[in-house]
Amino acid sequence: MIRCGVIGYGFLGKALTRTLSERSIEGLRVVAVADSRGYVYSDEGIALAGLSDRLANTRGYLEDDPRSLIDKEMIDLLVELTPTNVRDGEPGLGYLRAALSQGIDVVTANKGPLALAFSELRGLAEGSGALLRYEATVGGGIPIFSLVRSCLRGDVVYSLRGILNGTTNYILSRMHFEGMALDLALREAQMLGIAEKDPSLDVGGIDTASKIVILANSIMHMSCSMRDVRVRGIENITAEAMMSAKESGMTIKLIGSIEDGALSVEPMLVRLNHPLCVHGTLNAVNLKTEILKELTLIGHGAGESTISALINDIYDVVSMRMRRG
Amino acid sequence: MIRCGVIGYGFLGKALTRTLSERSIEGLRVVAVADSRGYVYSDEGIALAGLSDRLANTRGYLEDDPRSLIDKEMIDLLVELTPTNVRDGEPGLGYLRAALSQGIDVVTANKGPLALAFSELRGLAEGSGALLRYEATVGGGIPIFSLVRSCLRGDVVYSLRGILNGTTNYILSRMHFEGMALDLALREAQMLGIAEKDPSLDVGGIDTASKIVILANSIMHMSCSMRDVRVRGIENITAEAMMSAKESGMTIKLIGSIEDGALSVEPMLVRLNHPLCVHGTLNAVNLKTEILKELTLIGHGAGESTISALINDIYDVVSMRMRRG
Repeated sequence: MIRCGVIGYGFLGKALTRTLSERSIEGLRVVAVADSRGYVYSDEGIALAGLSDRLANTRGYLEDDPRSLIDKEMIDLLVELTPTNVRDGEPGLGYLRAALSQGIDVVTANKGPLALAFSELRGLAEGSGALLRYEATVGGGIPIFSLVRSCLRGDVVYSLRGILNGTTNYILSRMHFEGMALDLALREAQMLGIAEKDPSLDVGGIDTASKIVILANSIMHMSCSMRDVRVRGIENITAEAMMSAKESGMTIKLIGSIEDGALSVEPMLVRLNHPLCVHGTLNAVNLKTEILKELTLIGHGAGESTISALINDIYDVVSMRMRRG
Repeated sequence: MIRCGVIGYGFLGKALTRTLSERSIEGLRVVAVADSRGYVYSDEGIALAGLSDRLANTRGYLEDDPRSLIDKEMIDLLVELTPTNVRDGEPGLGYLRAALSQGIDVVTANKGPLALAFSELRGLAEGSGALLRYEATVGGGIPIFSLVRSCLRGDVVYSLRGILNGTTNYILSRMHFEGMALDLALREAQMLGIAEKDPSLDVGGIDTASKIVILANSIMHMSCSMRDVRVRGIENITAEAMMSAKESGMTIKLIGSIEDGALSVEPMLVRLNHPLCVHGTLNAVNLKTEILKELTLIGHGAGESTISALINDIYDVVSMRMRRG
């Protein structure tokens, strides 16, 4: 039985535990759920229904640093869902280091630690024999890492281009279809909860860059980090530029790409008929490979679809562990 | 070591053996390659380079029914690549029955046998413990079966819609973009080698229907066959109908679908901005699921990309067998 601890009880933590309370995964026992102030723990497995109430600091809730949970005596698998921080990766990076160095398997949705320290974390995992899965970090509803691992065996990915940020894609789509100026489309996105109050990470291309770093390390086996990405955001895209693209059967999209070992994020002209050209908050990834040649995946980048990535990663860890005995 | 026999030495057989001669798969030994008149066989493994010459009825070539290869004493894995026949499935269906009933694993690119006898073949495989893989039968460059198996674990696919026939999609795309009449676009496709001399299986929707049957049996765990599909082809699509769709920001596509347990193939209006709306010979599959919600895959339906499906299936069989010891 794999003893699983979940750290992070925001949108994803709540949605994941709700899903796990409705369908159990054979071989998995959730023994702990932590928020930033403490946790509930039971070696026998905790009841996932009604968890929010218990985490509201009542019976069974222990006020303590969640890090004390990351102990091989207490859990075998850490599901790490704390908020992304692409500046120093904390608190997630510390949690991942603690888990992987002890041989505790990790499933995470947290881009920050992987974008900042992919090679180090991969090294820790290899050193201790821990499994590290991060499907949810890039295009939550697009199973790109497991696809490359399980569906393209023997193949080599040459290059990748993607629309990896739903906020900017929403803004650019509104500019394209409605002729809106960027600041108006951004304000609309903020009102709808699609853009954050401080949208600079999205609009400036940093969020996309962090995903490109994870993809390059994972899929192309590169060793690179944020400083290796040439980043240009969409700040300077005018309504006029968008209209002129539209008149030529094109549009402007924020494209993250890995080509010939070079990582970049920049607004690019894309033909309206190209498979990559998706609108609204959709994400898309286009792969070029040696044997398959070309494949495009389109899905939701965030929100509930991300639960699918976490569930599949958890299944993967459990089945690998069950197999090894 | 898995001893592999390849039956069928047309486009796919040649391309696969060429690929396997350039990159070996650990644990796999190709011991036989057969065309319709006979085969080359060596228990030590046959040299894959220069195979065409040897199959041209010279030294080492045995004139014999390829069926005599399908023997547990001679091979562990049959890669079946004979031409598709959706009327009676032969000769592939007989080969598959012979292999699966003996416990010989099968990787096939042949739609006919699976569309006609999916339940029977699945039953034979389960009975003997053989593995049956058929990624190449539907959207050769879209790894839909392995994606559902390995990337959507714990999820349930509710419905599926797809553009699954490159020939009709090419014709409809020419009608959309050039305002061509169907017969003209069809003749062009025939000249380019995209449509066959007798295009009735493609144009009439039968090819798409056979793929929908395989998808429904495999992904939705249904037990259905060709007679369960309501099929309408594109024969009656006029240039005028296409133009009128275009004026509303739509186009007409031949869509295979599985919804609420009902299987159908018919021309449908599709929004030009919908992810499923791909053009030329591209294929696309759109899934709706319980956890992931929605995912679209776009790739080449046939040609060289299909080799990727065969290679991944072969890797899958080899790794499953190595694991079981």
